[in-house]
Amino acid sequence: MEQYKILEIKKSVFEDNDRKADLLREELKKDKTFLLNLMSSPGAGKTKTIIQTIEALKNEMNIGVLEADIDSEVDAYTVANTGTKVIQLHTGGMCHLDAGMTRQGLLGLGTEGLDFVILENVGNLVCPAEFDTGAAKNAMILSVPEGDDKPLKYPLMFSTVDVLLINKIDAIEYFDFNYEAVKERIKKLNPEIEVILISAKTGRGIDQWADWLRREVKNWNAQ
Amino acid sequence: MEQYKILEIKKSVFEDNDRKADLLREELKKDKTFLLNLMSSPGAGKTKTIIQTIEALKNEMNIGVLEADIDSEVDAYTVANTGTKVIQLHTGGMCHLDAGMTRQGLLGLGTEGLDFVILENVGNLVCPAEFDTGAAKNAMILSVPEGDDKPLKYPLMFSTVDVLLINKIDAIEYFDFNYEAVKERIKKLNPEIEVILISAKTGRGIDQWADWLRREVKNWNAQ
Repeated sequence: MEQYKILEIKKSVFEDNDRKADLLREELKKDKTFLLNLMSSPGAGKTKTIIQTIEALKNEMNIGVLEADIDSEVDAYTVANTGTKVIQLHTGGMCHLDAGMTRQGLLGLGTEGLDFVILENVGNLVCPAEFDTGAAKNAMILSVPEGDDKPLKYPLMFSTVDVLLINKIDAIEYFDFNYEAVKERIKKLNPEIEVILISAKTGRGIDQWADWLRREVKNWNAQ
Repeated sequence: MEQYKILEIKKSVFEDNDRKADLLREELKKDKTFLLNLMSSPGAGKTKTIIQTIEALKNEMNIGVLEADIDSEVDAYTVANTGTKVIQLHTGGMCHLDAGMTRQGLLGLGTEGLDFVILENVGNLVCPAEFDTGAAKNAMILSVPEGDDKPLKYPLMFSTVDVLLINKIDAIEYFDFNYEAVKERIKKLNPEIEVILISAKTGRGIDQWADWLRREVKNWNAQ
């Protein structure tokens, strides 16, 4: 098992988060490090999806992971077991990360030589959508058991992400989840969004997700 | 279908939320209105559980419901279809309700003659745990698909509630959910907590939940 650090991050003292996010993004671009901000409700499957993503891409990219949580280190422990470089961030009760907090996390992790860093944001559909972390792209996971009404209740989150993974698709027969209805609601909020059906449990859709990431990382380095 | 109002609530200007919560609680006690604050992640089944609760208790109590969400009115619509008095609260992007916001909601609903009011808080495991709403009791729903590690990640929420409903228990065979492990984690944080297994879909455990509510409402009116 790999070792991992735990970092107690402080709330940024600067007010201008958007400016700081742009600055961080520029620096990451210069370093050819692609940062993905991954958001979802608690328990939608962020960590399991990260594990599958690492498995799919670890032979082509150097990957690092920032695990943000109010408390505990269970996710960093899980990721460290794959041999991936990871750091656990504790947000001190805060339900999101801003650009300053993300920068602290990246410094704590050490990004030299990393092509691709995944930030697992705090499990929450409200606050994380309001703060630009400086990531190259924003992704969200909606899991089937949460229901198809979530775009109606958390429109900002669905509006701000570049890609939506609909996870736990293997359990769709167990739940009332109307895929056509949810897709219509999402596309209305965000016509450009890419929607990929996955099961982090069975591996379904991970190929398509890995292809999306390969393309985005390539574009990031080419621009 | 019953009519329902939509209220855009404002953030409280008073700082002393605890004092305001105590004051609201005293007033509700005088009026013999039992207020339950119901919290969970998005999609854990709060609204479906409220529908089952209404069905179980509507012949013995006058019930009202406050539905809090960032946006949409889908939950108020669902509850109104049962013939129950309901109001939709929009929190203006905020991920919780405080005591002042709850008071605005109760005034908007009109509590005269109501024995039991359920406040469906915003779907979130972080912010709602930090604000006393003035409720008589606090309840939380953890759904099986969210996983058994949630007490480790959101300890404050599990520490502050009086009762935990573990929902979607009908789907337990589909998910890795260790009930003994989760129970041990919860009891360590909160030894006094009552844990009830339910399925808002099949109705399992709703009798036990209704009994808990009957007892608490009785105690509230007797003190």
